[in-house]
Amino acid sequence: MSSDHLNVALLGQRFMGRAHSNAWRQAPQFFDLAVRPVLHTIAGRDAASLEEFGARWGWQNTTTDWSTIAADPAVQLVDIGTPNDVHEAPAIAMLEAGKHVACEKPLSATLDSARRMRDAAAKAAGKTFVWFNYRRCPAVALMHELVQEGRIGEVLHVRGAYLQSWGGPDTPMLWRFDKSRAGSGAHGDLNAHIVDMARFVTGQEVARVHGGVAETFVKERAAADGSKHASTVDDVVVFLATFTGGATASFEASRLAHGHHNRNTLEVNGTKGSVRFDFEDMNVLHFIDGTEDARLRGWRRIMCTDAEHHPYASAWWPDAHVIGYEHGFTNMVADICSVLGGGEPRVPLPDFADAFETQVVLEAALESAASGAAVDVDSLR
Amino acid sequence: MSSDHLNVALLGQRFMGRAHSNAWRQAPQFFDLAVRPVLHTIAGRDAASLEEFGARWGWQNTTTDWSTIAADPAVQLVDIGTPNDVHEAPAIAMLEAGKHVACEKPLSATLDSARRMRDAAAKAAGKTFVWFNYRRCPAVALMHELVQEGRIGEVLHVRGAYLQSWGGPDTPMLWRFDKSRAGSGAHGDLNAHIVDMARFVTGQEVARVHGGVAETFVKERAAADGSKHASTVDDVVVFLATFTGGATASFEASRLAHGHHNRNTLEVNGTKGSVRFDFEDMNVLHFIDGTEDARLRGWRRIMCTDAEHHPYASAWWPDAHVIGYEHGFTNMVADICSVLGGGEPRVPLPDFADAFETQVVLEAALESAASGAAVDVDSLR
Amino acid sequence: MSSDHLNVALLGQRFMGRAHSNAWRQAPQFFDLAVRPVLHTIAGRDAASLEEFGARWGWQNTTTDWSTIAADPAVQLVDIGTPNDVHEAPAIAMLEAGKHVACEKPLSATLDSARRMRDAAAKAAGKTFVWFNYRRCPAVALMHELVQEGRIGEVLHVRGAYLQSWGGPDTPMLWRFDKSRAGSGAHGDLNAHIVDMARFVTGQEVARVHGGVAETFVKERAAADGSKHASTVDDVVVFLATFTGGATASFEASRLAHGHHNRNTLEVNGTKGSVRFDFEDMNVLHFIDGTEDARLRGWRRIMCTDAEHHPYASAWWPDAHVIGYEHGFTNMVADICSVLGGGEPRVPLPDFADAFETQVVLEAALESAASGAAVDVDSLR
Amino acid sequence: MSSDHLNVALLGQRFMGRAHSNAWRQAPQFFDLAVRPVLHTIAGRDAASLEEFGARWGWQNTTTDWSTIAADPAVQLVDIGTPNDVHEAPAIAMLEAGKHVACEKPLSATLDSARRMRDAAAKAAGKTFVWFNYRRCPAVALMHELVQEGRIGEVLHVRGAYLQSWGGPDTPMLWRFDKSRAGSGAHGDLNAHIVDMARFVTGQEVARVHGGVAETFVKERAAADGSKHASTVDDVVVFLATFTGGATASFEASRLAHGHHNRNTLEVNGTKGSVRFDFEDMNVLHFIDGTEDARLRGWRRIMCTDAEHHPYASAWWPDAHVIGYEHGFTNMVADICSVLGGGEPRVPLPDFADAFETQVVLEAALESAASGAAVDVDSLR
Repeated sequence: MSSDHLNVALLGQRFMGRAHSNAWRQAPQFFDLAVRPVLHTIAGRDAASLEEFGARWGWQNTTTDWSTIAADPAVQLVDIGTPNDVHEAPAIAMLEAGKHVACEKPLSATLDSARRMRDAAAKAAGKTFVWFNYRRCPAVALMHELVQEGRIGEVLHVRGAYLQSWGGPDTPMLWRFDKSRAGSGAHGDLNAHIVDMARFVTGQEVARVHGGVAETFVKERAAADGSKHASTVDDVVVFLATFTGGATASFEASRLAHGHHNRNTLEVNGTKGSVRFDFEDMNVLHFIDGTEDARLRGWRRIMCTDAEHHPYASAWWPDAHVIGYEHGFTNMVADICSVLGGGEPRVPLPDFADAFETQVVLEAALESAASGAAVDVDSLR
Repeated sequence: MSSDHLNVALLGQRFMGRAHSNAWRQAPQFFDLAVRPVLHTIAGRDAASLEEFGARWGWQNTTTDWSTIAADPAVQLVDIGTPNDVHEAPAIAMLEAGKHVACEKPLSATLDSARRMRDAAAKAAGKTFVWFNYRRCPAVALMHELVQEGRIGEVLHVRGAYLQSWGGPDTPMLWRFDKSRAGSGAHGDLNAHIVDMARFVTGQEVARVHGGVAETFVKERAAADGSKHASTVDDVVVFLATFTGGATASFEASRLAHGHHNRNTLEVNGTKGSVRFDFEDMNVLHFIDGTEDARLRGWRRIMCTDAEHHPYASAWWPDAHVIGYEHGFTNMVADICSVLGGGEPRVPLPDFADAFETQVVLEAALESAASGAAVDVDSLR
Repeated sequence: MSSDHLNVALLGQRFMGRAHSNAWRQAPQFFDLAVRPVLHTIAGRDAASLEEFGARWGWQNTTTDWSTIAADPAVQLVDIGTPNDVHEAPAIAMLEAGKHVACEKPLSATLDSARRMRDAAAKAAGKTFVWFNYRRCPAVALMHELVQEGRIGEVLHVRGAYLQSWGGPDTPMLWRFDKSRAGSGAHGDLNAHIVDMARFVTGQEVARVHGGVAETFVKERAAADGSKHASTVDDVVVFLATFTGGATASFEASRLAHGHHNRNTLEVNGTKGSVRFDFEDMNVLHFIDGTEDARLRGWRRIMCTDAEHHPYASAWWPDAHVIGYEHGFTNMVADICSVLGGGEPRVPLPDFADAFETQVVLEAALESAASGAAVDVDSLR
Repeated sequence: MSSDHLNVALLGQRFMGRAHSNAWRQAPQFFDLAVRPVLHTIAGRDAASLEEFGARWGWQNTTTDWSTIAADPAVQLVDIGTPNDVHEAPAIAMLEAGKHVACEKPLSATLDSARRMRDAAAKAAGKTFVWFNYRRCPAVALMHELVQEGRIGEVLHVRGAYLQSWGGPDTPMLWRFDKSRAGSGAHGDLNAHIVDMARFVTGQEVARVHGGVAETFVKERAAADGSKHASTVDDVVVFLATFTGGATASFEASRLAHGHHNRNTLEVNGTKGSVRFDFEDMNVLHFIDGTEDARLRGWRRIMCTDAEHHPYASAWWPDAHVIGYEHGFTNMVADICSVLGGGEPRVPLPDFADAFETQVVLEAALESAASGAAVDVDSLR
């Protein structure tokens, strides 16, 4: 094991397993990395498909028992891409084994579990990372930069909505619809992203949640074998909040919004201007400088692909040869490798403590929805 | 006074005075009306400008004392376009004098006042109308039709936002910023419209408000003479609600959202599809039929100017010769004249009882924002 | 007849008759005019409908013989809204009678006829105007200002397209499909507008046409009585040109472009930036300043409704209370009245000499399409 | 060398070298391929950078002399990503050596050269492919399918424009600006793509070119060392055409269009509907079915990411997890491997004979621009 390599083990071989495998594999082609990731071990429960998956993506070893990885000194970083209820156990085991951990979001299926993970990270030698991949869309990273530079002034109003339409009654039963495994539905899956993005872009924490609604409109689903199961997670969750700096915020998540496929949107209105992002047109940031002459003032459609000026753009293709969903993950691998090589990430990386802050907001929203009363986020930390 | 004429008196000569004058004047050119409006009397406080205003718009008489209108048997309908705190007194006086009343929105500056107006209307012989003019944008009227026909199925999620950007600290003191006159700021001005539109389009009432935030970010403004005044109304109000049919709703109003001029938007997601409207592109309705084959399914951009199919379009210009803001008012005059001539409006017209339902929702939102607790709308009726 | 009034006679009571009547009637409400138009006489061939039309729009007199208007000393301006083959005779007669003439576009059905009109205007005491109404959309007027100020630098590339979809085989026979009456189809109807707009915005003339295609895809149409008639005009005409300043240009017109209702678009690319207009979103101008930092550079969506800064906006409604198709006509009446009152128009008004320049370009395009060879526009003047 | 592997050699290590390396490397991860590409040899002129490039992308061998590849029996397919004037020699050599050849577009720098390549391909045992990568954007592939299914009826009007803005006077001298190397500028680079796409989508050939304009606005550029060089290629080329089925077409290419980065657009209007593509929003196809009821008819924004229905989507990510520029290349590798494995491509692949048809159209356009006369494409074949 050379000091400029990073041996990675990955837990999970489904959607996130593919997305992460691709990112670890692609980052060295496009970035000059201080440490070069090696696809060391892939862990998955289904031995039958695991061999094929490992071979396809170039993983050197496979295992159906992730606990063996903790014991393997060769592995330096463990990437957790399993369902939400299988985050805590491996994360804490790997941290205790001295490894770095990169965990899928949300941090865990419950707040208590997430708190334990945060606390374990605080005591561990390894670094932690959480896959809030949208931070590393160039347009979102630029949004962060502009707000932090003060280009929209003081933040007044944040509007996040993450809308999808795949969760109708015909969609079969999956772990994502089982509250005991997923923790929540649209809330942990989608609101987690927009809360993280809002915290990242504004640089502020949520102080208070002012009411929420969480609805389970689809109450039963059929599994592949035709058996019926209760669908126990939320389909739609909306809530209001106030940031520490005084800004008002609304967050909306839905898996039942026809016309929206992966509509992850965030808008921030400030005293001097506004910024707006929509993942369905992910290479673009909309910005308006409210201090300009009204004659020529207007939303600017900024194609965030300029190698010289836009985050991550120099790694990829010439101007406006647009990138896609997967590139956010690859950009994150590049930043993880930068940090583990002693450098800086292109934009700040969330660790477990940071991701806990998102999770506590999500919990406050559910508590407010259940009680009908406003909730101080601090009371749940 | 011929039986096929309608003698109208108008109170107010500012923005709404112009918009209403134009509508009363234009409707007979474009529509074949059962009763033809006559611009009988204009009332305003500023005698100096009133003569010029009356002459310009063709009002036959002017008065600085609206109470004389109540006593004038020639006047059949009184149109109230004054600030919110000058709605109740003339409305009740005119109803008691047996006249029809068309009142600007919101119904009044306070819920108690609005309730008195509703009750007066219930006892009066005259008909009442409230100028929720956006109902009569062809695209909004079509949205109403599609939802009522069941084309989006059962309503699940309503998302209304009315965003403007004119209310920054440089905007001088106006009656609109004085709570004692306006009742509220963005809330009564903007949320009033989207709550009305949401009720109109879904055909449902709001059952419960689940939290809200009302912020006054700009606390002081200078008048034209340089004197400083407290700006006492809200700039931003957001709240959540549940409709009687179970749908979740969010409403957001802001006068501090750079990049938005008159962004009056409403989206409704149902079990079978979605509809979406944005006043900044007011001739267009977006619709998706979620039951169609995914291969060809997508948001449809419907230009609502087809004479044969789209509400009000046959009155105006050939296909896609788009109309503007003022035409909603003219369409409403046409519908008022239709009703007073014994016919039907093109789409339902709101009366005082209907407008009270919008106002009670606005009040519930403020109460929820103040208390931090959910509010049953019924408790305020 | 007071010296501050302008007695107007209008020829035509169809689509343009309505649009012009409305404009003459509305302009004094919204603008402070040096001369105030009086709707003196309406002329039309169909006596049965003429009375109703005149009464509806407030015309004081009606006539089925336009030649009587030439002899009426009370009429000061004659507005010609008849089919293209009925422009020349009344225009020349009215000019010879000393009247001002405002004529619909294109100037005439043939170039020879247009030339005679231009020459008559040159000798006449009255002023001439041509209803290229789109110049007076605020967004197009702003486009003109920005290019004339040099904000996009030297003009390199002009792209005009005017696309509609109403001209399919099911559309019944009209005068617009009869070449002997209309002169041409999409070309004179639609290309006329974009050629005028391109000349207006760039401030340059077309020097040379470099090829064209004119197609009649629909060759027969049924009249209302079921009889079949040859449809003899073009449905689609495209051509290329070079402007006197060296810019390349393309122009496309179609009545057979599904998805486009009234898609009148113009884009101009210059050495320093670009501007773009689309009538289907008529209140908006898109502008990019190519000299700005690439980090924040992008198309700006300028809502052209700012009273202080945007052409004509102060006459209408508050910011972003958008206007429609008809307002271009009303703005033009205001400018005509300004000029006849001794003032300046808000933006330059086209007269017969100016409109002849557009028509000679259209003729060069047809000649180039027929011959397959490039044509110097000068050879046709 | 196993029969289910495909040993590939690549010529070129610049922009296209990276894009092709990535595609050969990525295709097996996402597609189940009948033959699996092996990155056998990379050839480039700059030995210094070649080693690093080869190592980064996993090429097993490197050479600075491409002719050695012709002699290497292990290499089965040669991929040519060099400048346009270095297409013919290697292509013919490799075909004569019995190898398959995949060549970048345009086929060559001159028509004569392209004709020789076409003829060599006709006699060769190996298969040929040309990297018109945009055919394999899912939205363009769907556009092709819809038109071929007759969903827009008979094709009437084709409108292609490929606009960029990187070619201003500050851009340094490159081979792309030297006519002796590139053959042409925007024309061969950009019009080549939209002509290919138009031919692909319509399934028709261009019969006649009706005029064109080719302009070199920037006549001199500085090299990196400060030396001045004549910029001898076109910056803007526009031309008109007629397809064999009678449709009218316009094509526009520019590298001087501020506001456009990689605006590769194609619209096709037919008797029953229209389709429209814009690469800057590459995951979306716009479609309108003109036969539907006008009440609900409108452009549909189809997100082409549905695994079940949209071309290539099943290989990538879940619905609306959008893909980018590079994926068109990877999709093409998958299709090449499919064909070489004895299967069918997902959508038709262009070979040298097909690419020659595009090149002959480009030549006809330049000839028409030079002569000012229409040109029958057949005269140049």
